[in-house]
Amino acid sequence: MEKKLSFFTSFVRKERDFRKLLLSLCSKYTKTNNMKLKHILAAFLAVSFFCLTSLAQSLSPSTKYHFDKGTLVVDTPTRPAGQQHVLGLTAPKMATVRVAFVGLGMRGPGAVGRFCYIPGVKIVALCDYEETRAEACQKYLRNAGLPPADIYSGEKGYEELCKRPDIDLVYVATDWDHHFPVAKCALQNGKHTAIEVPSAMNLEQCWELIELSEKTRLHCMILENCCYDWYELNTLNMAQNGVFGEVLRGEGAYIHNLDDFWDYYWKNPDGSDPEKLGWRMKYNMENRGDVYATHGLGPVALAMNIHRGDRFKTLVAMDTKSAHGKEYVEKKTGKPCNNYRNGDQTTTLMRTEEGKVVEIQHNVMNPQPYNRLYKLTGTKGYATKYPEQHYALDKSQLAASGVAPKVDDLSSHGFLPKAEQDALVAKYQHPIIKKYGEMAQKVGGHGGMDFFMDARLVYCLQNGLPLDMDVYDLAEWCCLAELGALSMDNNCCSVAFPDFTRGYWNVQKGYQFAWASPEDEAIAAAAAEASTQAQKDLCAKKKLWEKYDKAKEKAAKKAKK
Amino acid sequence: MEKKLSFFTSFVRKERDFRKLLLSLCSKYTKTNNMKLKHILAAFLAVSFFCLTSLAQSLSPSTKYHFDKGTLVVDTPTRPAGQQHVLGLTAPKMATVRVAFVGLGMRGPGAVGRFCYIPGVKIVALCDYEETRAEACQKYLRNAGLPPADIYSGEKGYEELCKRPDIDLVYVATDWDHHFPVAKCALQNGKHTAIEVPSAMNLEQCWELIELSEKTRLHCMILENCCYDWYELNTLNMAQNGVFGEVLRGEGAYIHNLDDFWDYYWKNPDGSDPEKLGWRMKYNMENRGDVYATHGLGPVALAMNIHRGDRFKTLVAMDTKSAHGKEYVEKKTGKPCNNYRNGDQTTTLMRTEEGKVVEIQHNVMNPQPYNRLYKLTGTKGYATKYPEQHYALDKSQLAASGVAPKVDDLSSHGFLPKAEQDALVAKYQHPIIKKYGEMAQKVGGHGGMDFFMDARLVYCLQNGLPLDMDVYDLAEWCCLAELGALSMDNNCCSVAFPDFTRGYWNVQKGYQFAWASPEDEAIAAAAAEASTQAQKDLCAKKKLWEKYDKAKEKAAKKAKK
Repeated sequence: MEKKLSFFTSFVRKERDFRKLLLSLCSKYTKTNNMKLKHILAAFLAVSFFCLTSLAQSLSPSTKYHFDKGTLVVDTPTRPAGQQHVLGLTAPKMATVRVAFVGLGMRGPGAVGRFCYIPGVKIVALCDYEETRAEACQKYLRNAGLPPADIYSGEKGYEELCKRPDIDLVYVATDWDHHFPVAKCALQNGKHTAIEVPSAMNLEQCWELIELSEKTRLHCMILENCCYDWYELNTLNMAQNGVFGEVLRGEGAYIHNLDDFWDYYWKNPDGSDPEKLGWRMKYNMENRGDVYATHGLGPVALAMNIHRGDRFKTLVAMDTKSAHGKEYVEKKTGKPCNNYRNGDQTTTLMRTEEGKVVEIQHNVMNPQPYNRLYKLTGTKGYATKYPEQHYALDKSQLAASGVAPKVDDLSSHGFLPKAEQDALVAKYQHPIIKKYGEMAQKVGGHGGMDFFMDARLVYCLQNGLPLDMDVYDLAEWCCLAELGALSMDNNCCSVAFPDFTRGYWNVQKGYQFAWASPEDEAIAAAAAEASTQAQKDLCAKKKLWEKYDKAKEKAAKKAKK
Repeated sequence: MEKKLSFFTSFVRKERDFRKLLLSLCSKYTKTNNMKLKHILAAFLAVSFFCLTSLAQSLSPSTKYHFDKGTLVVDTPTRPAGQQHVLGLTAPKMATVRVAFVGLGMRGPGAVGRFCYIPGVKIVALCDYEETRAEACQKYLRNAGLPPADIYSGEKGYEELCKRPDIDLVYVATDWDHHFPVAKCALQNGKHTAIEVPSAMNLEQCWELIELSEKTRLHCMILENCCYDWYELNTLNMAQNGVFGEVLRGEGAYIHNLDDFWDYYWKNPDGSDPEKLGWRMKYNMENRGDVYATHGLGPVALAMNIHRGDRFKTLVAMDTKSAHGKEYVEKKTGKPCNNYRNGDQTTTLMRTEEGKVVEIQHNVMNPQPYNRLYKLTGTKGYATKYPEQHYALDKSQLAASGVAPKVDDLSSHGFLPKAEQDALVAKYQHPIIKKYGEMAQKVGGHGGMDFFMDARLVYCLQNGLPLDMDVYDLAEWCCLAELGALSMDNNCCSVAFPDFTRGYWNVQKGYQFAWASPEDEAIAAAAAEASTQAQKDLCAKKKLWEKYDKAKEKAAKKAKK
């Protein structure tokens, strides 16, 4: 179906424009008394709305594929001549990271709040479709004694923002539909970009971000906070130190019943959501595949050194039918919903070049406790996070890992007792937790992991280091939606995983976080502290907030008149 | 490879005979001084042993398949004209179930012991390859005051046993290689058959057992004890009463690190195991696919009404490489092992006609706690057994299920508190547990579930009812090995699941245990009690054990002379 529609979509470059056209035609339809016109309009609108709901975003119209002995193989674009990969990409050190936030609805405000705690950051601009939401985030800056940021709003506010020369980093936390257009605009305007998850909704977006990052030599990072959760970080450290032997298998998931949240997702007023389903429910309705894979996949992919010595090679996906999603939409709209694309639970399996397996689940529909699974199965040990955090190692492996067992009968047929587990975790506490743990607990954000993520991003930029995740991680983690949809639309067939590095997945051996030398780190930290102090001093000295309030008051009065 | 070998295997009807030939040639090779003959023999033996290890049993040589738009479709044999399905098959009521046990190594002795507790059973014969093991099981009968059974042993002991006219049921608990030949022999000789798991090792065996059961109108039951575990039975009862809403997804597994057991599996002295790996390690070495799927799959399949209104339609499988298995064999043999077929962990996904999904895992290699997973995800609730037994239901669903919540803030974002869970389990205690629970705890066998299984088998035979599992369950649960191997040998392709009922999967609506009316049940129970009492009386009166011991003593003396 999607293929047949490509002729159609090529005429309609911007779906949003097309929607606006339809809305205006709807209005014409209701107003006109010319019955012939009414009939023509009705027929056109019926066909158009059908096409519109079929414009599934997880299946990009440009993807081409063929079957090779039963395996579906998607085409990989050739890297333009002279263009280099961005593995290990670095940018010049920044004493101050000048950041702008786009998207201040659900995830954005927390990010602004956290950045106020990070020295050496200047929050230049705040942008949201709705001005009041952007404005509301000034409170974090005000409370921190930092100067006010400039406000951008409206449908195209981010375009204006991206054109400013005094921004280093655009931090994108919009709804899913806008992650890509904002990030693309930022990169095209010479800004480093960090994008909330999923950072790309389909293969076309993955490849376009890769091309942009490679061409512009700018960072394009996926903001996968779950890579920074405490258990995941410590377990990654254990895995890298051989505690589990060879890690053969990993599991991850996003299992989170969103019934308490569906009503609160933004309802885009551009005509794309006439039933007021909210963007997330609507996205699930229109798109098959694991549309939110990265919380589960990210931390597992790091532990399995994906594109650092291994790579995903084969993928298969299988979903249940839609039961709860379909029911929700029918209740909300009062109409039958026979085209709900996303199954209540989607399972994706991937096999790597080295014969390892990763399994990822997605279920935001059914009643059950929150679960990201996060399991690592190794030849010498086992880690499992949900519903309780455990490790299983036998006596000799625990001893080989540097922890003396306190009990005699320790086997891997049970989980480590609390004392042994605590000792293991203490021994392998991750350097990121050591450095930022205390601060993270103070600042918060999903128990601190969001702060780790932001602090690391700024640290790497200030020290001129490669970021923790590159654009290939972004693509590898986000492409599950389209690859899975292709698999499931073809009876759960096997799908060949593209090599997004285009030949360089085996150059770096083993995943690494980049660290500056203690001397360089100290210099960067001092510069960062000085930068923030200078901003605070300026803010106080020039009474920037008083001025700001007065200007606003004046503008309000003017508007009233 | 396997396909190319089919011309070869067609000449070698019985692998065992072929092995014997090879052994005799080996002996000739070592004894001869004729160098030309020695070279010819060496070449022949090298090729033959290569072929032998490639004769993977999970891939049956007779399976034919083709690709249909990327999906692998195996041929389904046509049901012979006049032959009927065996759904709901019953046999005439038996006052006494005359049983013979074949295979008394690991699982068999426990079964004999349990049957001594079941009224209305006569244990006619005990059979094992090794006479001493069969003999050792007489102790259960002696302790119960039941008459001694006849002993059969040797490679072909079971053939003689199956020919006896005074046996109703042959209970097969041999190693995996002998499940099928013994069961086939029993059915061909007019005996009902119950087979330990896996009851068929490949599609050829599945179909042959189906044809035999349909043709002879004899029961052929899979002894899947995990269907009878306490949590699984109660949860099945809940599922059937709508506690979880519509069950959309099930998980099951056999995750059990067998390092403590590998050494204890029987080493077949017929030449098939020259390295003394033991049959189970050898089987895993030679066969890909989930070779032990039924513990995980059985209880989930019952809860999902497979071939009672729904059926498995599509399967995909993916395994990790072999790490621990390969390492074990290399340590044991001192030689490199480059052809270890079974990956350390195998994952199988199946989708049903009704759009539901079942996921099954197999891992007997890596260190981690025992885990059969057993999870049911429904539209209104969730059940999970490992590592701890939990249910998740919200307040209204718990109330709708007939249990008044004792706390106010009950949501499905957490598991039920103990009081609520206990009340739910009490309310939905399964009728099998109600009837046999007390006895099962006394008799034991994996916490009692083995006794439930045997007691139900005998109950159904005594009351002339359909058994809890029919030959289609057997086939559906056992075919994962070959279907999974076919998937994985073809890059994890999608495989169409055969309809073993050949058109009748949708006749019965919903899985049911058969029960007799209270009146009929009482009559059957009285007859059973009387039968056992009569056997005990006869045994005591005729001093059968004294006579038995004397006869044995005499035979021993004779043998000494």
